[in-house]
Amino acid sequence: MSQLRSAKSEFRAIDVIRKKRDGVELSQADIEGLVNAYTRGDIPDYQVAAWLMAVVLRGMTRAETATLTDAMLHSGEVLDLASLPARKVDKHSTGGVGDKTSLVLAPLVAAAGIAVPMISGRGLGHTGGTLDKLESIPGFNVNLRVGDFRRVLETCGCAMIGQTPEIAPADRKLYALRDVTGTVESPYLICASIMSKKLAEGIDALVLDVKTGSGAFMKSEKDAVFLAELMVETGERMGKHVVALITDMDQPLGNMVGNALEVVEVLQVLRGEGPEDLKELCLHLAGWMLHLGGLSKSVAQGTQQSAELISSGRALEKFRQMVELQGGDSRVIDDSQRLPQARQTENVTAAKSGFLSAMNCEQIGTACVILGGGRERKEDSVDPAVGIVLHKKVGDRVAVGEPVATIHFNSEARLQRARQLITDSCVIANAAPATKRPLIHRVIQRPGEKH
Amino acid sequence: MSQLRSAKSEFRAIDVIRKKRDGVELSQADIEGLVNAYTRGDIPDYQVAAWLMAVVLRGMTRAETATLTDAMLHSGEVLDLASLPARKVDKHSTGGVGDKTSLVLAPLVAAAGIAVPMISGRGLGHTGGTLDKLESIPGFNVNLRVGDFRRVLETCGCAMIGQTPEIAPADRKLYALRDVTGTVESPYLICASIMSKKLAEGIDALVLDVKTGSGAFMKSEKDAVFLAELMVETGERMGKHVVALITDMDQPLGNMVGNALEVVEVLQVLRGEGPEDLKELCLHLAGWMLHLGGLSKSVAQGTQQSAELISSGRALEKFRQMVELQGGDSRVIDDSQRLPQARQTENVTAAKSGFLSAMNCEQIGTACVILGGGRERKEDSVDPAVGIVLHKKVGDRVAVGEPVATIHFNSEARLQRARQLITDSCVIANAAPATKRPLIHRVIQRPGEKH
Repeated sequence: MSQLRSAKSEFRAIDVIRKKRDGVELSQADIEGLVNAYTRGDIPDYQVAAWLMAVVLRGMTRAETATLTDAMLHSGEVLDLASLPARKVDKHSTGGVGDKTSLVLAPLVAAAGIAVPMISGRGLGHTGGTLDKLESIPGFNVNLRVGDFRRVLETCGCAMIGQTPEIAPADRKLYALRDVTGTVESPYLICASIMSKKLAEGIDALVLDVKTGSGAFMKSEKDAVFLAELMVETGERMGKHVVALITDMDQPLGNMVGNALEVVEVLQVLRGEGPEDLKELCLHLAGWMLHLGGLSKSVAQGTQQSAELISSGRALEKFRQMVELQGGDSRVIDDSQRLPQARQTENVTAAKSGFLSAMNCEQIGTACVILGGGRERKEDSVDPAVGIVLHKKVGDRVAVGEPVATIHFNSEARLQRARQLITDSCVIANAAPATKRPLIHRVIQRPGEKH
Repeated sequence: MSQLRSAKSEFRAIDVIRKKRDGVELSQADIEGLVNAYTRGDIPDYQVAAWLMAVVLRGMTRAETATLTDAMLHSGEVLDLASLPARKVDKHSTGGVGDKTSLVLAPLVAAAGIAVPMISGRGLGHTGGTLDKLESIPGFNVNLRVGDFRRVLETCGCAMIGQTPEIAPADRKLYALRDVTGTVESPYLICASIMSKKLAEGIDALVLDVKTGSGAFMKSEKDAVFLAELMVETGERMGKHVVALITDMDQPLGNMVGNALEVVEVLQVLRGEGPEDLKELCLHLAGWMLHLGGLSKSVAQGTQQSAELISSGRALEKFRQMVELQGGDSRVIDDSQRLPQARQTENVTAAKSGFLSAMNCEQIGTACVILGGGRERKEDSVDPAVGIVLHKKVGDRVAVGEPVATIHFNSEARLQRARQLITDSCVIANAAPATKRPLIHRVIQRPGEKH
């Protein structure tokens, strides 16, 4: 057939599909041709679906991954924030349960003088989403167009919105197709999706929080490290300073899971209160952001500066400013009761005495989805009020009948399924776990680099 | 997410895609669910495309292959030919260049008293198709509906048509999708496609002619044997007697390539003339069909009976009867000039003296397509008159300037490209090849079976 084909020189999707199927490395023309033709609507979903599955099963080289990221990035608008004098640094998490660090970090790091142009996602599957959490603040508008986003950013140093139609339209289309064709779970496609959107923000540097454990998409540390290395190298190839932290998601982060509940916990941390694990991770990530942004000589110094911005109240005031600029009711900051409240609560109690030795973190996230706090399908709406407050962390002693968690719910029927899942997810043993999983497993940075 | 999903019990294509992606064996419910939902139009092309690519790269077990074949077979009508007293035996070839054996075998085997209900395909890529060859006979109608097909079969013992809408609609839809998604080249999918259509013919036994060599889809003998074993085992699991012959396609079969030209050669063979390789393969395949049909104690005896049916003229008369019953002009049988004739011919001559040591058989097929005798896309029409007559076979001595082939053409522009391809495909060496490839490489039958 080669003689028949050589008579034509235009881009042929079928040839790119076959190359990837046969394990042949794709050229820049192949990848750009496919991404551009698909974004324009010139090739059908079924051809791209076959190609995506071939990528899942054949993988990609580092060069292919960077080319794909670049093609997706340039499928839309790339923000030019050169007019802002501040360094632009963002953070991205691969998603977890109770992971509300973005809401703390954007105002905290902005208070230090770094611009944080944060474009976030919604919850899907068992994980929560930053946009859903923000929208539990009455009036908060995450749907700013690019011009308004820029104005908020210029005024207060941070802004938090959802993906706009102008940013990486190829990713939007590809992600929707991956979701329905079993092709989400590929580190190469995950890397290109994340990095194309983040680099479209016009940032100088990026801190990645790659989760590992029972509540993460990457359950094993090996898979998390592989993805982290891929993203760091892709960022480097595209001239950005990228560091990845592999952090623990074997139990929920902090004590609260659910949209409004997580905002409550964010406000606690911004006041210098809140659970230790959440505070520690926020300060460490902020330390990295300040360091990459050139505001501190070391990560430790950045962490120290961040702690001072919290104790001085400046981080909380920056959050208040952002909420107001984005149309939210900032009275929630001093009065959490103004956030949506579930009609009922019920405790989950320990069936026996001992130590909480493990939690299935994905099940806790799923319990929150069942309560209505997350979405199984993209088009589902979420109930901002429902969720789970955990009273015990892994390693804690529990007595029989003692509350392990409190469920905030609006539907009896949903309560039953959620309570069963939470009960099943908590393992109570006679002795405390011999070893404690670290909060930060390791740091992935460019070879030879040290901070 | 498993807890979210378990709330629903209906068929979910995404779960079947993920299972195959992850290398998990699919259940009968998975495969039947997918095939039935796709045939009904309940799941979109893009999900099936992703699943097909996962099958190409992950493979299938023998049980999965048989289940897929069965689901595709039962997606439509299965002919019930029990009312015909004769045994029903068919032959299927995986496709090659100059392979016109079906046109010889149907009347030859029917003349012996076996019913041959032959549903064939069109040429695609570099290979020719039985239907295109038959249609070069003026008036010959390959588009009979099932009722007419049955009547021709009852009257003369053989009938040759194209796939009807009633037969294996799942294969029709899946094949169209495979063609545009780079998922044609999977032995499991090829097996299910062939076997589902052939078993829908209501046959008792099947002889498979699996081609190997430079003009076959399976270039290596290893791949051909793998496919042959898969089809024989699948047939056995479905209660049919199936034998596969691995036969040579490293040079065209016979001397003529092109639709009307191949009918000329078919008529030669039915008269006891024609090239040795074509005659030998036809007699051997007929021997197997007679043996599987219970008309001869051995293959050798069946081959002998077939030779007698040719020399007595009964095979040719059966061909005449079939042509007439299917609306064709049977005068072509005694006067080949009534077949479509190309306006011009031109010789390809040897550039040096020596021995024809090899031919790129796919290039010869492609040259015929370029002349207009085949189709690059399904919707292309074919020119029945054009083609190539070979004057030399591999191993033959050639003198400089001597004609190696004659091109029959209707377009000067097409001639140039075809001539170049034919010239390039012929390798002339100083010595004859040390070894001759056998015409029949091996026979694949059920373990423990001997004929």
